[in-house]
Amino acid sequence: MFLDTINQPNDIKNVEKEHLEELAQEIRDFLIKSISTTGGHLGSNLGTVELTMALHLALDLPKDKIVWDVGHQSYTHKILTGRREEFDSLRQFHGLSGFPKRKESPCDVFDTGHSSTSVSAGLGLVKARDIKGEKFSVVSVIGDGSLTGGMAYEALNNASKLETNFIIVLNDNNMSISENVGGVSKYLNNIRTASGYQDLKKGVYQALSGTKLGNEAITGIRRAKSSLKQLVIPGMFFEDMDITYLGPVNGHDIEELVRVINDAKRVEGPVLIHAITQKGRGYEPAVKNPTRFHGTEPFDVETGIPKKPHTQASYTDVFSTVMCKLGERDPSVTAITAAMPDGTGLKRFQKHFPDRFFDVGIAEAHAVTFAAGLAAGGLKPVVAVYSSFLQRAYDQILHDVCIQNLPVVFAIDRAGLVGSDGETHQGIFDLSYLSGIPNMHVCAPKNKWELSDMMRFAVGFDGPIAIRYPRGTAYDGLSQYRQPIALGKAEWIYRETEVALLAVGSMVKTAVRVREILLEQGHRVSLINARFVKPIDEDAVREAAREHRLLVAMEENVANGGFGEKVLDTIVREKLDCQFLSVSLPDAYVEHGDPEELSKMLGVDAESVAARILERLSQ
Amino acid sequence: MFLDTINQPNDIKNVEKEHLEELAQEIRDFLIKSISTTGGHLGSNLGTVELTMALHLALDLPKDKIVWDVGHQSYTHKILTGRREEFDSLRQFHGLSGFPKRKESPCDVFDTGHSSTSVSAGLGLVKARDIKGEKFSVVSVIGDGSLTGGMAYEALNNASKLETNFIIVLNDNNMSISENVGGVSKYLNNIRTASGYQDLKKGVYQALSGTKLGNEAITGIRRAKSSLKQLVIPGMFFEDMDITYLGPVNGHDIEELVRVINDAKRVEGPVLIHAITQKGRGYEPAVKNPTRFHGTEPFDVETGIPKKPHTQASYTDVFSTVMCKLGERDPSVTAITAAMPDGTGLKRFQKHFPDRFFDVGIAEAHAVTFAAGLAAGGLKPVVAVYSSFLQRAYDQILHDVCIQNLPVVFAIDRAGLVGSDGETHQGIFDLSYLSGIPNMHVCAPKNKWELSDMMRFAVGFDGPIAIRYPRGTAYDGLSQYRQPIALGKAEWIYRETEVALLAVGSMVKTAVRVREILLEQGHRVSLINARFVKPIDEDAVREAAREHRLLVAMEENVANGGFGEKVLDTIVREKLDCQFLSVSLPDAYVEHGDPEELSKMLGVDAESVAARILERLSQ
Repeated sequence: MFLDTINQPNDIKNVEKEHLEELAQEIRDFLIKSISTTGGHLGSNLGTVELTMALHLALDLPKDKIVWDVGHQSYTHKILTGRREEFDSLRQFHGLSGFPKRKESPCDVFDTGHSSTSVSAGLGLVKARDIKGEKFSVVSVIGDGSLTGGMAYEALNNASKLETNFIIVLNDNNMSISENVGGVSKYLNNIRTASGYQDLKKGVYQALSGTKLGNEAITGIRRAKSSLKQLVIPGMFFEDMDITYLGPVNGHDIEELVRVINDAKRVEGPVLIHAITQKGRGYEPAVKNPTRFHGTEPFDVETGIPKKPHTQASYTDVFSTVMCKLGERDPSVTAITAAMPDGTGLKRFQKHFPDRFFDVGIAEAHAVTFAAGLAAGGLKPVVAVYSSFLQRAYDQILHDVCIQNLPVVFAIDRAGLVGSDGETHQGIFDLSYLSGIPNMHVCAPKNKWELSDMMRFAVGFDGPIAIRYPRGTAYDGLSQYRQPIALGKAEWIYRETEVALLAVGSMVKTAVRVREILLEQGHRVSLINARFVKPIDEDAVREAAREHRLLVAMEENVANGGFGEKVLDTIVREKLDCQFLSVSLPDAYVEHGDPEELSKMLGVDAESVAARILERLSQ
Repeated sequence: MFLDTINQPNDIKNVEKEHLEELAQEIRDFLIKSISTTGGHLGSNLGTVELTMALHLALDLPKDKIVWDVGHQSYTHKILTGRREEFDSLRQFHGLSGFPKRKESPCDVFDTGHSSTSVSAGLGLVKARDIKGEKFSVVSVIGDGSLTGGMAYEALNNASKLETNFIIVLNDNNMSISENVGGVSKYLNNIRTASGYQDLKKGVYQALSGTKLGNEAITGIRRAKSSLKQLVIPGMFFEDMDITYLGPVNGHDIEELVRVINDAKRVEGPVLIHAITQKGRGYEPAVKNPTRFHGTEPFDVETGIPKKPHTQASYTDVFSTVMCKLGERDPSVTAITAAMPDGTGLKRFQKHFPDRFFDVGIAEAHAVTFAAGLAAGGLKPVVAVYSSFLQRAYDQILHDVCIQNLPVVFAIDRAGLVGSDGETHQGIFDLSYLSGIPNMHVCAPKNKWELSDMMRFAVGFDGPIAIRYPRGTAYDGLSQYRQPIALGKAEWIYRETEVALLAVGSMVKTAVRVREILLEQGHRVSLINARFVKPIDEDAVREAAREHRLLVAMEENVANGGFGEKVLDTIVREKLDCQFLSVSLPDAYVEHGDPEELSKMLGVDAESVAARILERLSQ
């Protein structure tokens, strides 16, 4: 095994040229086997094996720097920098991260997770290098999907001014997480298929032939190469921004890639290498079904079938179903996703209502303001988005939706602890950043039926409203409690005395278990489903405070600016005589790991919460 | 006066063609006279007189829709839609807004204020129109400066798919608020000067002439027009995105503009009109000094000199000075602005340290991640930015700076109530959205010396830190209080009993006055300068709570997630026996007006605060 000889950076340089393809195959086999056991990002990593090898061959790590956009394609980089043996702990609690992490290796120079940041970060490293008078290469690797994010364009626009070397590798697989969208994508596709290039060239040649000057005119054009650069060389879009374009290059041809990277290193300025890769390459199920194998749970290598089949409905499934019903009932309902039609469950809506479905690419900022425009135009837009990605559109929510009080619905998936993707993907800030925005309304369902009810309520509501719900299986308990949704009204589930649990969304399920533990200990415990975080139900807080000794606010969100602070504010403002306990997440980023393990670590699982309450009651 | 005949939408259509130039002149005279009295955005409005007139001539308002990017160039639009007589109240409390406002007129279809949103919003209106089966034109007017913002690119990328009409007018004055930056700007400049276009054409012709085929070959090329579109027509950058490009057009030739707009209305798809305008046109001082006349205070029309000369140092001036000193002392200090070298005071730093100064264009997201890259590369970046614009980079702060705990300094100007720009520009959310981010540190100076001290502290600090300070004259009171800055430590100014005022930044000055009022009433009042909002000084809160009957937290920020909530949390968590009063801004957007008037309206001026405290003490 050549792979066994790779134990630290630059070890790959000891592998003889003729064996590099074998090494690539070994890495592929390793990735497939490893990810089939742990789960992880498969397609993007299979697509970048040769590209990563070529970068490691042409560069000197860690002196030279590679910034991986998004970072879920960095597995081969991790293998080549001595982290192969840690792959059995991939994305597990205290295990190897699925993203580049500075704390893991000096070869990881910039942490990523969200899209379209690598050119900005790389440009910062370049400028720092130049100011400090150092010499090394900086390479930002960005996917064609990430290029639909405006930040990448802002960065390219700024890179254009550079007079020193900066290499941008466009890893173009014509596929971000889902399908690619927009004019730039089409433009790249023209280059990719070479049809644009060939057609254009042919068109000119034919046109000139039409003058009956034939070969002489063509020769003339060839001589005029410098003036005609923009005509006969693809990549004008980048050249127009003063970025040297090299390509397209076969992203699976190691030798060719090494040659081009070495060429690029000699350019005094920004240079973009356009590498064409195939997502999922070498594993047929992933090639055939790239979306399914973008991020995958453990699967059977032979068949590609998940080891634990998806049997129970997730909140995403519930959202998916209710959106189709709403779309059926109301022709003004429209749906927007930022490159996540599958992840958000909008694929079905897309199929049924293609004219009212919009995938805007990885462009959350545009998504939200576009939705504001739809709402200003009289429609009912639903923006379906992951909690952590909506952070990208904070100003657009505040400035374009909420100032005008426009009826945009935010369906926020992956809220709370998401688990294996770690720090960058935890949805633990949304209650804070959303409830701080005037005119915004924020709610969270306790179970799957309530998500449907809240969606119906939201679509009928005349103002901005956000519904946040967690990743994974939808809670199907408390099915008998289904009081109609009313703005800012909580739902009393159990009404007793002594302790009142006032829980938000996913924490209602936890509170049910907390209550059981406390009942076993002989306490009398009420449970209130908060439903709304903004506006909070002050009546419920008032009643709960009056009727109980201890009021416990529970949320899967950071304490800062969250639900607990609003409840406390009410207690103090109204001078309510009641003890108060806030159960929330600490002021810290949360690493990757199983959400249950993370909950325990953070003290927000039922047992920890019950223990804290018992301690408080015993004081 | 033709202007007197313009009292409602479409009245302009009654002005005969040969008098349109006179009307343009009357509008210009009106704008200059009016803005010289009230202050406002002058240069951008003088630059768009003819363009706006042409749009109103070619369109049918309010049926057709115009979305103004940023919106500070919409004065002529307001005049042409019957709001001329309200200009004496421009940007004043309860007066005419300096930006488009849906509540002002049905001709204002989308509120703007921040940059680069108009294409997204316009695209939303287009899609709503098409889905509802309606017929009207939608025009988004965007400046070349706004085109440096990534959102605009995200929107263009999405617009490219359209199969129905959508008109984008690129109002190109080669000048955003300050100078323009980047590759796209250079590209536009090439078109603007026609040199790129001419050079390219000439180059091809010459090259072909070199084949000695001369005119015949040139004729051949002309015949091959369709294939050569990208060669002989400027605007390939947009054409590459499948957006039809029309231009460049003289943005001061009304007849030509009307013709092109009518052409554009016939395009079945997205079409971009490239209009070349001159900022400040018709008023020599504004042409010569466009930055100064971008947003101006009242001025003398003859000389262009401000009526109230800027005599006292502003916080911006103080920041400007200290940045130069820091840059001198430490070669790793770098400065970043998003198109605001003047507004943020970085112009001097730019002059002294051009290699360490970066104007990234209107691209806050890139600015922050670029700064993270500089910090990861070992430098000490200072991002100078207005509070409300930093909202654009919330995720980049959270995801790119704070997860990695990188030492980026955020110098946040225009924090708190900014006054005449209104809702979109008030800097009243930063304490909340920043202090909710793990690893972030947030402070605010009480006076001008403390801003210097905090900047020095921040540049020496190893982690993310934000300093927020208000617009306008820097407070120069309390000069004798200058204890060294220590992380998370407040500063006791007066230590008495009964009432403790714990004030953040600008509110320290207010608190001094509050204290005077209370002293006059015979109360004993302590004053603590909070300095840090994150981490708050829990010792100070503890001591203040123990030694006083009432603790008053004062901040110029919304209550939600702000300083008061953190103080209250400490009081409750530590079971401190003390009454508490939070002085902060309500959960609402704040309209335009003089900051003092706004403070009174919101109850955060000294008199209102003192009255609230007296009432509380009397209970």
